[in-house]
Amino acid sequence: MTPTSPGSPATAPVGRPRSGGRQRPGGTPREEILDAAAELFTSRGYAATSTRMIADAVGIRQASLYYHFTSKEELLAELLAGTVRPSLGFAASLDHEPSVGQPLPAEAKLFALAAYDTGVLCGGRWNLGALYLLPEVRGDRFEHFRKERAELRTAYATLISGLTEPGAATDDLTDLVFGLVESVITIRSEREIVDVDAMALRVASGCLRLVGVPAARISALQAGH
Amino acid sequence: MTPTSPGSPATAPVGRPRSGGRQRPGGTPREEILDAAAELFTSRGYAATSTRMIADAVGIRQASLYYHFTSKEELLAELLAGTVRPSLGFAASLDHEPSVGQPLPAEAKLFALAAYDTGVLCGGRWNLGALYLLPEVRGDRFEHFRKERAELRTAYATLISGLTEPGAATDDLTDLVFGLVESVITIRSEREIVDVDAMALRVASGCLRLVGVPAARISALQAGH
Repeated sequence: MTPTSPGSPATAPVGRPRSGGRQRPGGTPREEILDAAAELFTSRGYAATSTRMIADAVGIRQASLYYHFTSKEELLAELLAGTVRPSLGFAASLDHEPSVGQPLPAEAKLFALAAYDTGVLCGGRWNLGALYLLPEVRGDRFEHFRKERAELRTAYATLISGLTEPGAATDDLTDLVFGLVESVITIRSEREIVDVDAMALRVASGCLRLVGVPAARISALQAGH
Repeated sequence: MTPTSPGSPATAPVGRPRSGGRQRPGGTPREEILDAAAELFTSRGYAATSTRMIADAVGIRQASLYYHFTSKEELLAELLAGTVRPSLGFAASLDHEPSVGQPLPAEAKLFALAAYDTGVLCGGRWNLGALYLLPEVRGDRFEHFRKERAELRTAYATLISGLTEPGAATDDLTDLVFGLVESVITIRSEREIVDVDAMALRVASGCLRLVGVPAARISALQAGH
């Protein structure tokens, strides 16, 4: 906990009191600012939100916000990164073969990655995946995010190519699998996904059906998860 | 053709000339306005677009725009309706059993609906499905669109329930199938879908795999399409 974090009145900063006083998740001002930006971007819209509104929602001055983030774009880039980076790390961890025991078969890896990724997109307080389709995200400022998302797609493609016959249209199948995982973004925009684990297993099973894994092997993976 | 339509200089309206002079698809001013709105909403963003900008893009006065549409919301509602209404009509047509010959089996109907719907989402000049996730669309003004989209989802659910055993989780499967079809919206936001027919067949085949239709029967449907 930093000295200026909320919930520690003994070390509250001097000067102008926080106008909001609302408690946001995250132990640091940086995390509180990101949470407020995520709320406003997903509920009001990105274009309709100013850094001033974000600062107001946290209860800090705009100048204090600029101490942590240089621009609204940087806030969006950071929030978008949080939707792909955990899954990228998880995909990388699947590459490390265990030092003892059998290596995981490709279908188990694909099942695990799809379930994990679905959990990331369903998790967090705000439906950040809904920001993927913003026209702004097509701009240069978000090239790094697009590159990381493309890397995640490549991780799926690699696993899928290990499950299909040589010469199969891996890229076309990857479109469908990647699209099925991200479809939880639209579901979440319509209703709360109460049981995220069940949704993750459903989507992961659907991904294996798309790739042609037999139903009995999918049931076994579901049971073992 | 209306007297004021572009491309008929002999009957061009008197008064201030059209500032843009750019030719837009559609034989009527109404269609030109919708096309301009679709372009601006998908490229600049909905919140960042004004009716003034739309009028400028068509080359008409703002007052002329208001003769056809009462608000920016009405333009968005009309554009959104165009992404679901054709598929709703197609789903209804599948309900009519042919007067001669065999009725279509449920799997052929689901294949046809998914392929048609994918074609609608991939078609048109602008990726209008990208507007589904706008926070504005959750408002009262767009309840009619949400209702029509829910009806389309119900059409999928009805076909899927005819393909699964009684007691199967039809609603969960419908999430996946509906999500897979709409995933072309995200693909289209990243790259041009050159062969729409091939994409439609791929998505429709994926939908049947999700529902558990055997591969041989899917191949037969693809071959017959």
